[in-house]
Amino acid sequence: MQQLQELRQKIGELDSELLAIFAKRRQLSQQVAENKYAHNRNIRDHEQEKRLLEVLTQQGLKIGIPENTTLSLFHNIIEDSVRSQYDYFLKQANRYRKSIDIALLGEAHSYSHMAAQNHFTNTVQSLNTTFCSSFMDVFKQVADGHVELGLVPIENTTSGNIIEVFDLLIEHDLKIVGEEKLKVKHCLIGTHNATLESIKDVYSHPQAIAQCKNFFSRNPKINSHYRNSTSSALSMVKEYQNPSIAAIASEMAAQKSGLKIIDYGINNYQENYTRFLLISRTDIQVPKTVPAKTSILLHTHQETGSLLECLHVLKQHKVNMSKLESRPIPTKPWQEMFYIDFDGNISHANIQKVLEKLAAVTTHLQVLGCYPKHDVIATHLNSDSINYKL
Amino acid sequence: MQQLQELRQKIGELDSELLAIFAKRRQLSQQVAENKYAHNRNIRDHEQEKRLLEVLTQQGLKIGIPENTTLSLFHNIIEDSVRSQYDYFLKQANRYRKSIDIALLGEAHSYSHMAAQNHFTNTVQSLNTTFCSSFMDVFKQVADGHVELGLVPIENTTSGNIIEVFDLLIEHDLKIVGEEKLKVKHCLIGTHNATLESIKDVYSHPQAIAQCKNFFSRNPKINSHYRNSTSSALSMVKEYQNPSIAAIASEMAAQKSGLKIIDYGINNYQENYTRFLLISRTDIQVPKTVPAKTSILLHTHQETGSLLECLHVLKQHKVNMSKLESRPIPTKPWQEMFYIDFDGNISHANIQKVLEKLAAVTTHLQVLGCYPKHDVIATHLNSDSINYKL
Repeated sequence: MQQLQELRQKIGELDSELLAIFAKRRQLSQQVAENKYAHNRNIRDHEQEKRLLEVLTQQGLKIGIPENTTLSLFHNIIEDSVRSQYDYFLKQANRYRKSIDIALLGEAHSYSHMAAQNHFTNTVQSLNTTFCSSFMDVFKQVADGHVELGLVPIENTTSGNIIEVFDLLIEHDLKIVGEEKLKVKHCLIGTHNATLESIKDVYSHPQAIAQCKNFFSRNPKINSHYRNSTSSALSMVKEYQNPSIAAIASEMAAQKSGLKIIDYGINNYQENYTRFLLISRTDIQVPKTVPAKTSILLHTHQETGSLLECLHVLKQHKVNMSKLESRPIPTKPWQEMFYIDFDGNISHANIQKVLEKLAAVTTHLQVLGCYPKHDVIATHLNSDSINYKL
Repeated sequence: MQQLQELRQKIGELDSELLAIFAKRRQLSQQVAENKYAHNRNIRDHEQEKRLLEVLTQQGLKIGIPENTTLSLFHNIIEDSVRSQYDYFLKQANRYRKSIDIALLGEAHSYSHMAAQNHFTNTVQSLNTTFCSSFMDVFKQVADGHVELGLVPIENTTSGNIIEVFDLLIEHDLKIVGEEKLKVKHCLIGTHNATLESIKDVYSHPQAIAQCKNFFSRNPKINSHYRNSTSSALSMVKEYQNPSIAAIASEMAAQKSGLKIIDYGINNYQENYTRFLLISRTDIQVPKTVPAKTSILLHTHQETGSLLECLHVLKQHKVNMSKLESRPIPTKPWQEMFYIDFDGNISHANIQKVLEKLAAVTTHLQVLGCYPKHDVIATHLNSDSINYKL
């Protein structure tokens, strides 16, 4: 045991050293961002990253670290570096304030709250959050000018698109100014005397319940009930103090509520991600050097092949479409409108040309927003010929 | 530019330092594994990890690193450390040889090949691979004693279960001795004069085509065709040298083939994972201190509620089921058998009790294997009450 304690102490010391070097690296990376911004240079230089990764994997092999292990460690470090540099570019282009007013669903430590905190980690010192009880309320808070930004989930890898939010986006004249992705792990949360056996009714947001469908199949005696948010489900459990009822919410929310986590990670798939959108009354300026996404809304002519014509325009201009969702037009039953996300910045000539051509073949074209892309694509070794989409 | 070069050089130097410290940490972690194995101690000590992460996030905040960033970096480092320790325990319990004969689908750098290489990174010096043209051939190679191990994909997060492999598992009297998960990014690969516009026909394994369904929706003029493996599709493109045909395969395979990557990451979802199983004629010994999974096959009585009875046994013993798949029994049409994965080691008394009870309520019970679990669950801060499933 003595020996184990000593080894652990040495590991702790190495970890502190490692963290100190990492902090220095982050400062240098910040200086690189300043230099690149001043000279209007691209943030990503895949050739440079590739050379660095090649040197590091070789060095690693010499000291016994497998290639995959070195790559995994440095992909993580480079992703942090790239994201901080993007954030610096955005800050410069938009003069971010120290604090931002933001509306979102639920209460403190809801999934929306966690996504907002992650999104502004590098750019904003404090978030003034207005907690809402419905997605509609989030939109209303922003539209009425009570807050600067709203954050809403738009899709989940397990449960799919959140149609309600698509429809709210279509109904409101707001702009999409950002996106964020959050890995979601659902916990089953009850009172301190609750067990899996004592629970009869579980409350949560419909999305969370859909993402835990298999849990309910495995436990056929437990009934699921919808609530407006995971936070309101949690408040209910706390109020009633009844071991037969439980909520599905995040680990962090469980902790802060003082309730007990009965089961951890009950989502169907371990890889469960939710994508959130930031909405605002005004556009954001995305510097040309930061990879961007654009979201648009189209009404096509009532002819077969109209949508295909639009998709051809994107293809002709080599624009990558990442999302396509059709919705009925409320005032024109049996006609469809299309929501499309594609990679590209509306200030680029190529994307402007695309929008012109789309306007010519549709009855209505609306840009919902152009905003920085969340994903940082890792640079791979041995990949001279890759056509990076950034 | 001068300044950028200097900054990059300094970053490179810090990265080398970081890597050297990481190598030292890995050596100490190896000593920890030896100590724990000698004293029959558990590998994971979540309380210890939590204390370490708390200290590190506090230290990080003082030098300007956001909490999430520190956690993400050290979750990566701890995962590597835990996995190496598990591998050490397995090696001790099973006296791994320096080289292993393994059969798998495709050719060098196929997804199966990459999964095998990742799986044995820490434990085996060289893999002697026998490349097969079908999953059935992989099973045959193992069953006939030509190789010690086989590796086959069993499910994918986008395209679901690979029924063919389930059925092969059921037909052959082989043991599952391991699992591996691989993040799969599909590339569209053609000849050097091929472009997205010139391509009319795309060849690949049915699973890869299913995982890129949206690509085909976006490009309605491109037809998809099945081949036995991504590797054989690639060989075809190389042989014909025709700009109208392309293959879907991994980036690494594209590189090694000397063909051109026309589009990168064309899978529907960025988070696209395949789970592989290792099969063998003989069991593996999983030390009780290593988290394990058990796979079983059940035939239930022909009565409603028979399966439910089995699931109740698992629940009574607080055993977490991670997979349930039903298949028709070939010799008994309209009767179903069930394939079940659950967390637990068959050498634990609790799991032995579960198996006894299951045998009493089924007409057939077969243990397909007990093997180390691939996932390393990250220790979270602020989580005293978590009921870890390991």
